[in-house]
Amino acid sequence: MRSMRGIPVVLSGPSGVGKGTVASLLMNMGLDMIRSVSMTTRPPRPGEREGVDYFFTDPAAFEEAIDRNQLVEWAKVYQHYYGTPKHFLEKQFELGHDALLDIDVQGAAAILTLYQEGIFIYLLPPSLEELRRRLHSRAKGEGDDLDFRFNQALREMRFIEMYDYAVINDDPQRAAEECRAIIQSNRLRVERRKPWLRDLGLLT
Amino acid sequence: MRSMRGIPVVLSGPSGVGKGTVASLLMNMGLDMIRSVSMTTRPPRPGEREGVDYFFTDPAAFEEAIDRNQLVEWAKVYQHYYGTPKHFLEKQFELGHDALLDIDVQGAAAILTLYQEGIFIYLLPPSLEELRRRLHSRAKGEGDDLDFRFNQALREMRFIEMYDYAVINDDPQRAAEECRAIIQSNRLRVERRKPWLRDLGLLT
Repeated sequence: MRSMRGIPVVLSGPSGVGKGTVASLLMNMGLDMIRSVSMTTRPPRPGEREGVDYFFTDPAAFEEAIDRNQLVEWAKVYQHYYGTPKHFLEKQFELGHDALLDIDVQGAAAILTLYQEGIFIYLLPPSLEELRRRLHSRAKGEGDDLDFRFNQALREMRFIEMYDYAVINDDPQRAAEECRAIIQSNRLRVERRKPWLRDLGLLT
Repeated sequence: MRSMRGIPVVLSGPSGVGKGTVASLLMNMGLDMIRSVSMTTRPPRPGEREGVDYFFTDPAAFEEAIDRNQLVEWAKVYQHYYGTPKHFLEKQFELGHDALLDIDVQGAAAILTLYQEGIFIYLLPPSLEELRRRLHSRAKGEGDDLDFRFNQALREMRFIEMYDYAVINDDPQRAAEECRAIIQSNRLRVERRKPWLRDLGLLT
């Protein structure tokens, strides 16, 4: 029996929405899905493992990967590069695993051009007041920075129409369950099941 | 807060696949979904209630409904008419309820031309051998009739590519749960949530 090819599951959302928590809950729900491992030039933090948390590399090697078109998306945040290696993803997809990518709007746009069949989920706060409150509770310093980050979140949220699904994160467990239903039902799509339906003799 | 407009949920599948059982289980899963009520010229059977099981009518009134374009789909099976009244569906959609339609491939094609936003699910047997076995256990008479029905089922299944989803009915409870995940995740689609996201101020 042929196995179904995996696809990218993109999870985006404004800073402060609680994306990391939802992604972790989702990864523990028994779906046949791996978490995409990014390549970065940032030095490893204590406890971070090569090939599990990140593929650690140096700027010269990262820039070579960009030039050779070996990254499906990448960004430079402050002085460090972050990117998604194409080879890693493609291997997972061939093995039939979906891959969760926790990336921003620009990264999602890059994935969309390569994988139209992907699932694009945008995580939203229950309200703008709540988003401001969450950003505030995470803030470490001045109020100026908070306003800047809130306005940045508002700007980013305008790209939601690029996504297939909007999940409200009022409760992380519920939000993760909604993401799971989205991923499970995508696997029931006729176009994903075609090779399998052919093997069963149900489709010619 | 504006409520989300309902859509048709079409459930089709070959004779013998167990569509009725899955539809009944699905209707008891607490989804905001009603079961579409068909209009028919068939006489009521004991216990059938007007407006619940069917809208019972006479051939002249049914033919007038066809002429006035008041049915979203209809068919004549043996000597009786069956059809789905447009007014009934539209009212449910305005109230925000999805509507489950247990109809054949021809009916589904008619629904698709009117409601591209609908959910189209095709229920499949786990194997062709199992379908033949199920048809056999339901058969009341000669083997010729069984072959005819089996070949008809094979012919009908070739239209599966018109559908969005293929659900395998190996276990009716599991099949109904898969249908539920499909319907729930459809409600998380950005295009369905737009009016609501606008009301929240999350979309302009």
